[in-house]
Amino acid sequence: MHSTAKLRGIFTPNVVPLDSRGDIHERELRRYVDWLIAKGVHGLYPNGSTGEFTRFTVEERVRIMEIICDQVGGRVPVLAGAAEANVKETLRACEKYYELGAAAVAIVAPYYYKLSPRAVYAYFKEIADNTPIDVTLYNIPMFASPIDVPTVKRLAEECPKVVGIKDSSGDIPQMIRMIQAVRPMRPDFSFLTGWDAALMPMLLIGCDGGTNATSGVAPELLVKLYELTLAEKLDEARQLQYDVVTLFDAMITSSEFPDGFRTAVRLRGFETGVGRQPISDEQQAELAKLADKLQCLLAQHGFTDEPGCGCPIPSSSPDVARIVEAVVAKLKQRGL
Amino acid sequence: MHSTAKLRGIFTPNVVPLDSRGDIHERELRRYVDWLIAKGVHGLYPNGSTGEFTRFTVEERVRIMEIICDQVGGRVPVLAGAAEANVKETLRACEKYYELGAAAVAIVAPYYYKLSPRAVYAYFKEIADNTPIDVTLYNIPMFASPIDVPTVKRLAEECPKVVGIKDSSGDIPQMIRMIQAVRPMRPDFSFLTGWDAALMPMLLIGCDGGTNATSGVAPELLVKLYELTLAEKLDEARQLQYDVVTLFDAMITSSEFPDGFRTAVRLRGFETGVGRQPISDEQQAELAKLADKLQCLLAQHGFTDEPGCGCPIPSSSPDVARIVEAVVAKLKQRGL
Amino acid sequence: MHSTAKLRGIFTPNVVPLDSRGDIHERELRRYVDWLIAKGVHGLYPNGSTGEFTRFTVEERVRIMEIICDQVGGRVPVLAGAAEANVKETLRACEKYYELGAAAVAIVAPYYYKLSPRAVYAYFKEIADNTPIDVTLYNIPMFASPIDVPTVKRLAEECPKVVGIKDSSGDIPQMIRMIQAVRPMRPDFSFLTGWDAALMPMLLIGCDGGTNATSGVAPELLVKLYELTLAEKLDEARQLQYDVVTLFDAMITSSEFPDGFRTAVRLRGFETGVGRQPISDEQQAELAKLADKLQCLLAQHGFTDEPGCGCPIPSSSPDVARIVEAVVAKLKQRGL
Amino acid sequence: MHSTAKLRGIFTPNVVPLDSRGDIHERELRRYVDWLIAKGVHGLYPNGSTGEFTRFTVEERVRIMEIICDQVGGRVPVLAGAAEANVKETLRACEKYYELGAAAVAIVAPYYYKLSPRAVYAYFKEIADNTPIDVTLYNIPMFASPIDVPTVKRLAEECPKVVGIKDSSGDIPQMIRMIQAVRPMRPDFSFLTGWDAALMPMLLIGCDGGTNATSGVAPELLVKLYELTLAEKLDEARQLQYDVVTLFDAMITSSEFPDGFRTAVRLRGFETGVGRQPISDEQQAELAKLADKLQCLLAQHGFTDEPGCGCPIPSSSPDVARIVEAVVAKLKQRGL
Repeated sequence: MHSTAKLRGIFTPNVVPLDSRGDIHERELRRYVDWLIAKGVHGLYPNGSTGEFTRFTVEERVRIMEIICDQVGGRVPVLAGAAEANVKETLRACEKYYELGAAAVAIVAPYYYKLSPRAVYAYFKEIADNTPIDVTLYNIPMFASPIDVPTVKRLAEECPKVVGIKDSSGDIPQMIRMIQAVRPMRPDFSFLTGWDAALMPMLLIGCDGGTNATSGVAPELLVKLYELTLAEKLDEARQLQYDVVTLFDAMITSSEFPDGFRTAVRLRGFETGVGRQPISDEQQAELAKLADKLQCLLAQHGFTDEPGCGCPIPSSSPDVARIVEAVVAKLKQRGL
Repeated sequence: MHSTAKLRGIFTPNVVPLDSRGDIHERELRRYVDWLIAKGVHGLYPNGSTGEFTRFTVEERVRIMEIICDQVGGRVPVLAGAAEANVKETLRACEKYYELGAAAVAIVAPYYYKLSPRAVYAYFKEIADNTPIDVTLYNIPMFASPIDVPTVKRLAEECPKVVGIKDSSGDIPQMIRMIQAVRPMRPDFSFLTGWDAALMPMLLIGCDGGTNATSGVAPELLVKLYELTLAEKLDEARQLQYDVVTLFDAMITSSEFPDGFRTAVRLRGFETGVGRQPISDEQQAELAKLADKLQCLLAQHGFTDEPGCGCPIPSSSPDVARIVEAVVAKLKQRGL
Repeated sequence: MHSTAKLRGIFTPNVVPLDSRGDIHERELRRYVDWLIAKGVHGLYPNGSTGEFTRFTVEERVRIMEIICDQVGGRVPVLAGAAEANVKETLRACEKYYELGAAAVAIVAPYYYKLSPRAVYAYFKEIADNTPIDVTLYNIPMFASPIDVPTVKRLAEECPKVVGIKDSSGDIPQMIRMIQAVRPMRPDFSFLTGWDAALMPMLLIGCDGGTNATSGVAPELLVKLYELTLAEKLDEARQLQYDVVTLFDAMITSSEFPDGFRTAVRLRGFETGVGRQPISDEQQAELAKLADKLQCLLAQHGFTDEPGCGCPIPSSSPDVARIVEAVVAKLKQRGL
Repeated sequence: MHSTAKLRGIFTPNVVPLDSRGDIHERELRRYVDWLIAKGVHGLYPNGSTGEFTRFTVEERVRIMEIICDQVGGRVPVLAGAAEANVKETLRACEKYYELGAAAVAIVAPYYYKLSPRAVYAYFKEIADNTPIDVTLYNIPMFASPIDVPTVKRLAEECPKVVGIKDSSGDIPQMIRMIQAVRPMRPDFSFLTGWDAALMPMLLIGCDGGTNATSGVAPELLVKLYELTLAEKLDEARQLQYDVVTLFDAMITSSEFPDGFRTAVRLRGFETGVGRQPISDEQQAELAKLADKLQCLLAQHGFTDEPGCGCPIPSSSPDVARIVEAVVAKLKQRGL
C-alpha cells in the first residue's frame, strides 16, 4: 500500500501492550489495532513517542511494525516511526518498513544532542535522498532538536520524498508559518498536529489532520472532532475540543508519559501491562487514583461504566451545576 | 463611561508618538486616536507593552491617559494599563484612571522579580479588593511573572472586580483551560488574546477579542479578521490571518520591540518619532530596510503606496507564482 | 569621595527597613549602615535587587541614596543602583548620585523587554558617554536582558567610564571568559560576583569581590570568607563557603525574594518591617517557620541565640553525627 | 580490576576513531588508548557523550568496551558508559562490562522523555539493586532528565552500589549542595565534574576529579591542571584553567558536538575519521577553519606545529601585547 495519497485525518500513535514479563503482547496489540480501525481512525502511527520507541530494542521495534502492518492488512495507512541510532540504521529501518507496506515513515529530529538547524537539515536530506519510502518530519521540540520553519521549507523544496510534517509543539503561529512557506509550492505536503489540545484550531487554520495519542483512548471523540471541524459545526466542535483538553490533560500531566495513556487504554478493555520506565511507589499509587478519574471522564461519554466508587458531578456539562455556580457568583458580586 | 458591558472586540495597544525631543507628541497622539476609532477598532489600550509603559515616568503615564481619555471622549472603551512600582502606587493610578473615565484597567503581573503563583494571587487580590475600577489581568509570561490557570480561577471566584484576562502567551490550550475554569461561573468574564498571530483560532475556541498591536498599524485588517471570524467565513478569515502573521512577524522580529510597530505606524501617516530605547547603528540601518518591507506589505492591502524602489512579487498571494512553483516541484518529483 | 580606586571586596546590597506604614525607616536604615560598616564590609550597594529598587518610587530611591551617603560619610565606597525608566532619567540619577558622593553607579541592563546584545550595548554606551560618574554593568540574566561577553568587551574597550561588572549569574566559565576578554587591556576593570553561593571559587578564578546579599545578614561570614580565600587558606575557606551556601539557600528559596533576607536581617536586631510585595497567608506562615530555621543557622556561628524552641542537631558540623552516619553507611555497604 | 578505590583524577571520555567506511577504527582506538595512558590520564570513560554512545548500535557499544578494556589491561580504571534502551538492557550491559573488568559504569538519567525526580530515582534504584558493578550517576541536564540533589542524596543513602556522580552541569553551587548532602555519610562517594571550563574551581570546592573531553585532546594540560590545583599552586593553575577555557570553547561552540573534539584529536596524530552525524557543507567548511585555529592553540603549548598559514599573535599570553593594550587603554582613559 505505497499510496501516493496525501496523509489526512486522525492517526493513532498507539501504545504497545506488554505482557506480564514486559514483552510485546502480540495478541492484545492485534486486538487493539482491529478495535482502533473499527472505531474509525484514519491511520496508525507505531513507534512514536506514545509508542515509547526509545524503550524497545531494534528487534522489538521491527517486530511491532511487522505485527501492526500484518494486522492492518492495508485497511488504513501506517505511518511508521523509523528513527534509529544513525543514518545508516535509520535507512535500514526505512527499507524494512517499506517492504512491510507502510505508507510513509515519520522520523524525529536527532535527540540527546541538541543540533543546529543546519545539521537537522543535513540529517533529513541524507535520509530523504537515500530511502525508498516517503518521509514525514517529526518535530517535537520538548524532546528532540527543533525543526525550524526555514529547514522545513528547504527540505520541502529539495526533497520530493519528504511529504509532510508531524508537529507536536502545539504552536499555532508556527504551523501557520510552515503552511505559508510550503503549501504554495507543495500542495501535496501534509501538515499533522501532534498536540491533541489544539486539534480543532489547528485544523481550522489549515492542518490536514493529527497524530493524537488521545485517539488511542477515545478514537470516537477524536474522529468526531475531526469530522465536526471539517463540517464547520463550530459550536459542537468547540465543546468537544474542550472535553478533549480535559481528557488529554488528565493523562499527560500524571506520572510519566505515556503511563496516563497506557492506563486509559486499559479502561477501554485492553491488557496494556506495566510500562518499562520504573516509577516510584507514590507514582504507582497516583496512577491508581488517576484510573478512577479517567474512568469517570470516559463514562461521561458512555465509553465505560462509572467506577465502583462513583464520580463527582462533572462541572463542565450539567446545566444545573453551572446555574447554581453562576447564581452564587452573582450573589457574591453583590456582596451577599 | 464606567460601563458594565463585557470587554469585546479589538482593542489597540497604541504606541505613543514622540516629538523631536523625545517627549509625548500630543497632537499626533490625538490625531492617531481619532484615526484608530475612525478605522473601527472597538477600544484603546494605552500604557501596555506596545505603549512602552516602563520607559515613561509616572507623570508621563498619567499624561498619556489624560490625552487619550479626553480625545476618545467616550466613543470607545479605554482599557488603561495601570501597573506601577507597588500596590499603593498602582491603586493610586487605578483611582486616577477611574476618574478619567477608563472602562477598566489592565495590570501586568509583577515583573523583574519572578514571583510564585501564590504571590501573584496575593498581589492581584490586594489590588482588586481596594480599587474602584474593574481590573483585567495581564498575562505576558515572556516579560513578567506568569499568571497560571488556578490563579485566574481563584481571582475570578473571589474578586468581582476582576472582569477579564488579557493573555499574550499565544498558547491556545492554556486559553481553553482558562475558559473552562472560569466561564461557567463568570459568564461576564472577558478573555482577550494579545497574540496577533493566533487571533482567529483564539476567537474560534471562545475568546471575546484581542488587544493586538497590529491593529495599531492595520486596524482595517484586524477588525475585518474579527468580523469574518465571528461570521464564520472561515476561508476568508484564514487567508487574512495568514496575512496578519506575515505582517506581525515582520514587525516583531526586527530590531527591538516595539520599534517595528513604531515604524509601521509612521507609514500610515503619523509622526511616531524615535523610540526611547537606544539601538545600535546596525539596528537603525535594519529599521530603514524594514520600513520598505513593511510598506510593501501594507501596499498589498492598499493601505500605502509601494516604496520608490518597488516591491518583490509577493509569494503568498499571486496565483501565477504559486502555479509556477508547484509545476517546478512536480517536475522535480518526477526527477526532471 | 570620587575615588579612582578599583572596586574590591564585599559590597552589601542592603535591604531597606520599612516602618509600620511601609515607608522608609530612616533611623533603622542609618543604624543598619553603621552596623554593616562596623562589621567590616568594604562597601555598600543600595538600590540593587536586594534593595527592591523596582518597588520604590523615583523619589524614594533618591531618598535612600541620600540617607546612605550621608550616614556612610565616606567611610566606605558606595556603589549606587541607578537604573531608571529610560536613559534620560538614568542619567539624571547618575548626576544626583555623583553629587551625593557615590563611588560609582551600578546599572542593570534593561528589563521587562528582552533586548538583543546590540541594544544592550547601545544603552550602556549612551549612558557611559554622558555621565559624570563611573559605571558598573549589572548582569542578572534571571531578571533582566543578559549582558554577554562580547558586549562587556566592547564597552570596556570604548568606554573609560565603564569600570566594572557585577555579575549575578553564578556562571564561573562565563566569568573567566569576561576576565580573559577584558583584563589584559583594562587591568583597572573590576569583576564582582553577585552569587553568594559561588563567592570563594569566583575569587579563586580571578574576581575582585562580591556584592552579596548574605553579607547584609552575616557580614562577619562573608568578610571572613573573602579574607581566608585571599590568604589561600583553602580548607577553612571551603568550609565557610559551604556554610554560606546553606544560609543563602535557606533565604533565597523561601517565599519571595528578598523576604528571606529581610527576615534574617531582623534576627540581627533591625526592624526591617514587612516587604512591599503582598504575599499569601501560607507564605506568611512559612516565613515565620523560616525565621526559626535562620535563627538556628545564625546561632551556629554565634550571631544570635537559638530560638526558644531549640534547634535540630546541625548535620554539617558536629563530628559525632558525621561519624555515626559514616559508620552506619559502612555497615549498610557490607550488607549489615 | 574491580577495585574498591574511590574514583579520582582525570578520566578521558574518548571519541571513537572511525575508518573510511564509518566503522570503529580498532587500530587507531588502541593506539589512542595507549597514548592517553602514556600522557598520564587517570582513567578512561568510553561510551559517554563525547563517545557518541547514542550513535552506535548495541553491538558496537559492546565492541568499543571490549577493545578498550583489553587495551587498557588494568593500567588505569575504566568507567564504562552503560545506558541502554531500558532497565533490562542496561543491566545486561552492566554485567558484560563487569566481566570485561570495568571499574564502574556511568549511567545517564533517562533521556528523550523528561522524567520527574521520582522516576529518575526509581530508575537508578532498580539498576543499583540488581547490578554486580558499581554505578556512577551521570547528570547532564542539557541533554537528559536532571538528577537533583535530593535524588542523589537518597540514592547515596539507599544504594551502596551507587559510588559517585559525574555532573556535567558546570553549576558549582549545585556541586557544593551535593557534596554537603552526601559526603558526611558516604566519604567514599566520588564527585566528578564533566565541565572542563570549571575544573579548577570544582576541585577547589571539593570535587575528586573530572571526566573532561578536553583531556582527550590535551591530556598533558588537564593532568597538569589537576596536579597544580591539588598542590594549591593557584596562580599557575588559574592561568592553565584560562587556557583550558579557550581551548574548550573553541571545540564546543563549533559545528556539532563532538566534532570539534574529533577534529582536535586528529591534530594530535590520530585518524579519527568523519563523525556519524551528517553536517551541512557550510559546517564542513567551518570545521576546516576550526582545525587551523585549534592547531594554533595546541601549538602554543608545544603540542603541535603551527599550521602552514601561521597563527595570529595570541592575545592571552604574551606580555608585550598586553602591555601595549593596557597603555593604549590608559591613554584613552585620559582622553588622548
